[in-house]
Amino acid sequence: MERKSNRKRASTAAPAAPIQGRVAAKDLATRLGVATSTISRAFDNRSRISDEMRQRIIAMADEVGYRPNAIARSLIQRRSGIVALVMGDLKNPFYAEALEAFSLELQRAGRQLLLFVASEGSDADELMPQLLQYQVDAIVVTAARLSSRMSELCERQGVPVVCMNRRVDDPTVWSVCCDNERTGAAVAEHLVGNGRRACAFVSGDPNVSTTSDRLRGFERGLAAHGQRVAACVQGGYTYEGARAAAAELFADGRSDVDAVFCVNDVMALGVLSYLRTNTALRVPEDVAVVGFDDIRAAAHPENGLTTVRQPLGEMIDCVVRLLDEGRPQGSLSQALREIPGRLVIRFTA
Amino acid sequence: MERKSNRKRASTAAPAAPIQGRVAAKDLATRLGVATSTISRAFDNRSRISDEMRQRIIAMADEVGYRPNAIARSLIQRRSGIVALVMGDLKNPFYAEALEAFSLELQRAGRQLLLFVASEGSDADELMPQLLQYQVDAIVVTAARLSSRMSELCERQGVPVVCMNRRVDDPTVWSVCCDNERTGAAVAEHLVGNGRRACAFVSGDPNVSTTSDRLRGFERGLAAHGQRVAACVQGGYTYEGARAAAAELFADGRSDVDAVFCVNDVMALGVLSYLRTNTALRVPEDVAVVGFDDIRAAAHPENGLTTVRQPLGEMIDCVVRLLDEGRPQGSLSQALREIPGRLVIRFTA
Repeated sequence: MERKSNRKRASTAAPAAPIQGRVAAKDLATRLGVATSTISRAFDNRSRISDEMRQRIIAMADEVGYRPNAIARSLIQRRSGIVALVMGDLKNPFYAEALEAFSLELQRAGRQLLLFVASEGSDADELMPQLLQYQVDAIVVTAARLSSRMSELCERQGVPVVCMNRRVDDPTVWSVCCDNERTGAAVAEHLVGNGRRACAFVSGDPNVSTTSDRLRGFERGLAAHGQRVAACVQGGYTYEGARAAAAELFADGRSDVDAVFCVNDVMALGVLSYLRTNTALRVPEDVAVVGFDDIRAAAHPENGLTTVRQPLGEMIDCVVRLLDEGRPQGSLSQALREIPGRLVIRFTA
Repeated sequence: MERKSNRKRASTAAPAAPIQGRVAAKDLATRLGVATSTISRAFDNRSRISDEMRQRIIAMADEVGYRPNAIARSLIQRRSGIVALVMGDLKNPFYAEALEAFSLELQRAGRQLLLFVASEGSDADELMPQLLQYQVDAIVVTAARLSSRMSELCERQGVPVVCMNRRVDDPTVWSVCCDNERTGAAVAEHLVGNGRRACAFVSGDPNVSTTSDRLRGFERGLAAHGQRVAACVQGGYTYEGARAAAAELFADGRSDVDAVFCVNDVMALGVLSYLRTNTALRVPEDVAVVGFDDIRAAAHPENGLTTVRQPLGEMIDCVVRLLDEGRPQGSLSQALREIPGRLVIRFTA
């Protein structure tokens, strides 16, 4: 207590010597000759305060070693500023790009990202007990499944949930994704328009909306021209899985398949690799290959992959806006935000 | 209060109807007929409790909607279970793989990962003020720089800092990395041993240890055979930067360079791409290419990249162990953990 009262006596004009031990907001306020509430506002990005005053306070805080206790604040405000992100499949560059962009966007809004990675083959459920111990303001789930039981648990605790790049059949959860069905149809249109007559599909998990919606659209687009999907093989979302799928489709070069639509770019690159290293088939002359996502590698000159560009920036903006909306209150369709994707034509189709 | 006393009257044999609103540990203890402290232990992965009891408690907690408040607990224990990870460059799959592995490892230990992404060209410093507001138990920094001023600030707050895949000149901060200098020398040995006579180096930031240590080793390895680095060009850690670097090295096919060592795999793939799409030079007959990291794409059949495998699993184990060690107390060399890397020879060198 002795040290504390010493600190209090420091005049506002005192040189900014570091204060040892934990520094209180009051100490800093005294040094600067401002109210304690002004100190709090300087550290809350949502508060109004002049840039000049904020910078002055932060500079002095750095010098004396003051940091507001966000954890204590969250108990009072019942708002931690923490958003939990549950994700699987960081092996897919699309999700790594999404994570980077989402993280930067949250930081800009003065919020923090608590990351939970769903291990392979598991779903978001097993992570929820640990996750709900933190007073997260909202939960974003991507590349992982959320059961209805867990969605109920979040609802009971009043925590909003947003699924990104997933459409879930649950009106209490927001879904933000690309208009997968329409873009799936656009891919079929493009292939048929270029004379393709036997279009195959390399799928991910058929129970996941990104796969089922794209396939439904692809089937619809082909049907409009009297065609059906020539073959549908499982690629498990991975490069290796897609190479195996291609081996199945083009065994001994006997296949009449002249186009392959893959449910993501990682698999399209696997199919391209197989065709180039294991067959004499030429891309696109003999076989067209189309992906989905438009990851950076799609544009690399040795790939030149024709693909669907997912509107990642817009999807993330939409997710961030929904974080403040609470849980959706209306119908299933009102809980869905679909953002248009765009076919990017390069050299493989 | 009315509702609360109703809940208290619920007998231990009551069916597990959900309790509306926030449920206290005491309510759950009453239902199960156990002590409140037993409930706490069930949710603390570091506490001893039988698996059976833990599962019984967690199952009942799920049913009635109880969650311990980790935030409140952290204020009492002055230990939040949260580890902050500051990282740049999620575009590099090596760091995406590192993030996934690190995250899974922390979860296994019952700890959470608060992620901070350093935007391009910035360093970890600008994130520290926001980060230190959370009662993080430790900070891990990777692919981002930490200034000595910020290291001091962390020291004053008693927060240990571990740099991963970076060697920093600061004895108060742990550094965990591959033995970059020795492996750099091993790459030179391999190239010279295969008759290469003009070995170039494609670098990242020369002020970062991963670049400077690998280059120093490479120079030493070449010097042992009377050679010097034939050319040193900047690739900026990116695929695009490396293509530009290769364009510089092999302008109009006039270069006599017969080997290129790149400071990461992403750049090695950029150099390979340039050689294959923009020159008539054959790999490895005319030019050998070596990378560093051994990301998944290095092993893809169309790449077959010779590279140095970073011991990612061991590096992460080491980082996780150091989180509980506090800040290093000895010399600079005692704060450094170097783990052997290994040359993986495929088809490009």
